[in-house]
Amino acid sequence: MPELRKDPITGRWVIIATERAKRPSDFVRERVEIHGSGFCPFCNGNETKTPPEIIAYRSDGSSRNAPGWSLRVVPNKFPALGIEGGLNRQGEGLFDKMNGLGAHEVIIETPDHQKTLAMLSQRQIEDVLWAYRDRILDLKKDHRFKYIMIFKNHGEAAGASLEHTHSQLIALPVVPKRVREEVDGSREYFNFKERCIFCDIIKQESESGVRVIADSPEFIAVAPFAPRFPFEIWIIPRTHLSAFEDSQKHEFEQLASMLKDMLTRLDKVLDFPAYNYIIHTSPIPETPNEHYHWHLEIMPKLTKVAGFEWGTGFHINPTPPEESAKFLRAAVLEPAT
Amino acid sequence: MPELRKDPITGRWVIIATERAKRPSDFVRERVEIHGSGFCPFCNGNETKTPPEIIAYRSDGSSRNAPGWSLRVVPNKFPALGIEGGLNRQGEGLFDKMNGLGAHEVIIETPDHQKTLAMLSQRQIEDVLWAYRDRILDLKKDHRFKYIMIFKNHGEAAGASLEHTHSQLIALPVVPKRVREEVDGSREYFNFKERCIFCDIIKQESESGVRVIADSPEFIAVAPFAPRFPFEIWIIPRTHLSAFEDSQKHEFEQLASMLKDMLTRLDKVLDFPAYNYIIHTSPIPETPNEHYHWHLEIMPKLTKVAGFEWGTGFHINPTPPEESAKFLRAAVLEPAT
Repeated sequence: MPELRKDPITGRWVIIATERAKRPSDFVRERVEIHGSGFCPFCNGNETKTPPEIIAYRSDGSSRNAPGWSLRVVPNKFPALGIEGGLNRQGEGLFDKMNGLGAHEVIIETPDHQKTLAMLSQRQIEDVLWAYRDRILDLKKDHRFKYIMIFKNHGEAAGASLEHTHSQLIALPVVPKRVREEVDGSREYFNFKERCIFCDIIKQESESGVRVIADSPEFIAVAPFAPRFPFEIWIIPRTHLSAFEDSQKHEFEQLASMLKDMLTRLDKVLDFPAYNYIIHTSPIPETPNEHYHWHLEIMPKLTKVAGFEWGTGFHINPTPPEESAKFLRAAVLEPAT
Repeated sequence: MPELRKDPITGRWVIIATERAKRPSDFVRERVEIHGSGFCPFCNGNETKTPPEIIAYRSDGSSRNAPGWSLRVVPNKFPALGIEGGLNRQGEGLFDKMNGLGAHEVIIETPDHQKTLAMLSQRQIEDVLWAYRDRILDLKKDHRFKYIMIFKNHGEAAGASLEHTHSQLIALPVVPKRVREEVDGSREYFNFKERCIFCDIIKQESESGVRVIADSPEFIAVAPFAPRFPFEIWIIPRTHLSAFEDSQKHEFEQLASMLKDMLTRLDKVLDFPAYNYIIHTSPIPETPNEHYHWHLEIMPKLTKVAGFEWGTGFHINPTPPEESAKFLRAAVLEPAT
């Protein structure tokens, strides 16, 4: 009998379909490979092919928009949103619309086209996290923005249009619906229990251990109880904190290490899958708070989302998280670089 | 400047990204083609390779699970849900789960492997609609079910695992979250205005005409104001009705004609795209009602859903619906068969 499981934060039901494929080898997919052919605007030497950089990390005193960087943040050349002007909310009969105001930036994680994020050193991944934080802190000063979302699409199947490893940032004038649901769900739990639901999840998962993938003093990586996707992973800070950007230095060090560890395990177990990750953090006007707890969700792209998922919002997941955690725990890793 | 538009029913915001691709030819995708190679359990003569049929339409007096049918409904051989037993709701610490109870059926729309739904005659498509209705009426008698969803995945990119044209039905013991949002949104509007929001949309769209694709006495096909996907189409009955299965014979006739028309236009304009469609209808225990209005949503599969969409629940759509409606209206069709 399949099992229906409820995500305790959003109330979303998931079907854990035990009759279907579930081992890593049961998923047919294309391995993400770096071809490196053709022109790449994110490569060293091509700095003038992107819009002018917003920030860059340079240790050699090199000049802006020129080689010598280890990480660059640039505006998206084809932005989904425009940075200028006001919202200008207005109606069109019964419909509502406003200007597509927002920021859309690209974090180029390394000048090296041949590297994936998982292949970068822990120190380089820390820099990626610092860049996320630097940009969030800067954009928070602009009071038109209510939410800043950081995400990464890795591999064409996961929506990456350029193969050179990069993350994206979108600053939005509204709190998106899915974020609203998550924050509201956490608040409801807090109102009822006077405890943070993520803190409770960490405690329960640590005690049972069945869905824990890895552990460090400041972070835990788990396969969530009601995952939408096979081999979905959540990395959660052990100490309650509502906003990603308020993390401390030693926390970013451990997060970089944990993130590298998880991406490497996915590569081992699933043979270099495409994936998305998203930093889930509090809406800007609502932080700090006691009910919401920032975390990072990694979703390997193994299954196709079809009519049923679009219609219901509930997902059919052929791999119980207890199974995926077992595979991911068992992956033997090379010593970290 | 891109535009943010709000779906008036669910409150979901959509980015209409004017800086990006928007013409039909700008979307790179694989054309859905029927190869017909290899064994197909849905073909004439292979009736014993599916679970025993639930219903079949036969005009020649042929016997069950044997050739001679024009349409068959069978249980899904790899069901996402199991039909036997009770829900057995239970906790696991702070988590909630229950048995994956439900029905999962396949509607085989024709014995002919070479045909797509768009290629079937209006009469055959009517039969598909009658089959949907027959199964809904039967499953409604089972009081364990709260919602019945009918959907179709066409083409591998849209999640179809077998190419022989078919639709699917899933009966669920809970009202799914996305359906809940839509029904609740409609009810809120009704409470405020004392009118059905879909009836209001039909009126406004008919008057402005910019998003109307086609029209018949009982149905209207529009590109919705805030579409998640490029070339998304909604077919809405003009007369208020909360449940699909309560439609009358002449309505099914016109719906079959409109559905064939829309699928044919998509094939013309987008060169045989993969697509999903979903029948949006009232939850079983809540029908009939004045606030919710059943309709059918067609979503061609042209773009990849990536980190941003998963994280926010809002979609980036590069094609304004006024543009997609223009292309779809202009498509020249062969005379109907």
